Amino acid sequence: MYRPEIKVLDCTIRDGGLMNNWYFSDEFVSAVYQALSAAGVDYMEMGYMSSESAFSRDENGPWKFCRDEDIRRVVGDEPSDMLLSAMVDIGRIEYEDIPPKSESLLSMIRVACYIHQMDAAIAIAEHCIDKGYEVTINLMAVTKVMERDLDEALDDIAKSRVPILYIVDSFGAMYCEQVESLAKKYLAALPGKTIGVHCHNNQQLAFGNTIEGIIHGCNRVDGSLYGIGRGAGNCPLELLMMFLKNPKFDRRPVLDVVQKYLLPLREEIEWGYHMPYVVTGMLNEHPRSAMKFMAEPERGSFVDFYDQMMDATEVD
Amino acid sequence: MYRPEIKVLDCTIRDGGLMNNWYFSDEFVSAVYQALSAAGVDYMEMGYMSSESAFSRDENGPWKFCRDEDIRRVVGDEPSDMLLSAMVDIGRIEYEDIPPKSESLLSMIRVACYIHQMDAAIAIAEHCIDKGYEVTINLMAVTKVMERDLDEALDDIAKSRVPILYIVDSFGAMYCEQVESLAKKYLAALPGKTIGVHCHNNQQLAFGNTIEGIIHGCNRVDGSLYGIGRGAGNCPLELLMMFLKNPKFDRRPVLDVVQKYLLPLREEIEWGYHMPYVVTGMLNEHPRSAMKFMAEPERGSFVDFYDQMMDATEVD
Repeated sequence: MYRPEIKVLDCTIRDGGLMNNWYFSDEFVSAVYQALSAAGVDYMEMGYMSSESAFSRDENGPWKFCRDEDIRRVVGDEPSDMLLSAMVDIGRIEYEDIPPKSESLLSMIRVACYIHQMDAAIAIAEHCIDKGYEVTINLMAVTKVMERDLDEALDDIAKSRVPILYIVDSFGAMYCEQVESLAKKYLAALPGKTIGVHCHNNQQLAFGNTIEGIIHGCNRVDGSLYGIGRGAGNCPLELLMMFLKNPKFDRRPVLDVVQKYLLPLREEIEWGYHMPYVVTGMLNEHPRSAMKFMAEPERGSFVDFYDQMMDATEVD
Repeated sequence: MYRPEIKVLDCTIRDGGLMNNWYFSDEFVSAVYQALSAAGVDYMEMGYMSSESAFSRDENGPWKFCRDEDIRRVVGDEPSDMLLSAMVDIGRIEYEDIPPKSESLLSMIRVACYIHQMDAAIAIAEHCIDKGYEVTINLMAVTKVMERDLDEALDDIAKSRVPILYIVDSFGAMYCEQVESLAKKYLAALPGKTIGVHCHNNQQLAFGNTIEGIIHGCNRVDGSLYGIGRGAGNCPLELLMMFLKNPKFDRRPVLDVVQKYLLPLREEIEWGYHMPYVVTGMLNEHPRSAMKFMAEPERGSFVDFYDQMMDATEVD
């Protein structure tokens, strides 16, 4: 697939940080930065930009906050051409925490929101535009949104200055059919705007669904090294780089950093294909209960977890 | 997805046996049989039916041969309604090795062949029909076949009595686009016949591509428990059972046998997502070199393996 408009974002540090509270070493983040730069990846998401009043530095590594001094430490004295982004969560960031782009190494702010936060998301996104950033809105958990509410949100975005909206499969619940349907819907509702896709891998569909998004017109795609990310993780960037035939990409530096940094990390952190994540994905539920199960020192049978989840999601 | 025509075959023992020379304990095979029966799976593939002159019993477990006495040992005194199949490879089976169906617990013989073996495959398949079996032809490695040769093979099958042809992604090289294209081609060339799909998981696309096949009209689909199979493995049956909404299926016995038998086996045998399998899949190559790399006691960097494979597949 070669379409020059397609831009790839790596969310290794941001989404992967959900598995280790963003305690990546500077060496790790720097190696990822160098590899992605050499590979021609368009954007690297450095983490979340959060208020220090919302989260403690005692419990979270630097990439939960994405301050410029942290970024400068890992990108070195001669930053590459790769663009950097940070994600903000509604309610966990104050406007004044966001520096003007002229004072920051970041180029893009991605605003993550739930459907009921869309007004706040558009407001903060336009605030970021005014500060000089490229922005996106990433509407999470869309698999739990009623069509009527989604239509209203799309209408709001259409009228806004926000240029990019992501399809986000937060729970890894979508099949290709849902991706196709949402891509068509978003594109039809947002003429002139760009659609992105961010998938989770609970049912081993993150890569397949990302391809599906690309086929149906998504021009922003997320991947992460060796698929690291919350729970089952994301679309593996190495697979995406093999699918995309744009000659600007060089997959070898990606393979290198997977070998040297991700394979060892995978021994410490268990993202990927695990049955509790399959269960929450299939049930269209947040992975938090599965992550709790996975963190238990004496893990029981996942079938008991399945039975509990089935009971819990039964409606009287 | 609910389409009553869709029939599911489990190839845990047959394809998984490629990883352990079919040395599954009787207890394991029996547990799989009981679970699949309880789950409503349509077919269980017990293994390969091979001539004892082609392979040695000293180097291969019973499921390389699939003799009736072996099958009777694991299905017990009261076999379920689930149908049993065995696969035959061209050149590794003699006609006289195949008992008449009336003397066998098997209901179906699947004939695996490469494109140049199609005439032999049709001949043996029709021989099996005459002996009373349902038959399929599984055309392997179709990602390496020239269109003209494929058209000729499809024409031969159209004229034959063989009712079912499988799309087989032997190397895990296909994207959804290739599956769609082949499904349409096979269906158009074979009016009145049934198309199946058998995927490998090198690029984490086995489940996604199986869904793609179903959407485009494939009514026979293969899965295996926890995705066990050669190299990266197959489409995980547990995922497939969650996608298919046919009320005849009960996914819980499948989850149970995954917990009790497959998770422990996965500690011993390394099928699944490993970078050498990604490399051979992406390059549309047989996984044997990747399996060799994975079997080395001191595994080096897969990037060296990638470099070697890139060199080897370069054409002067």
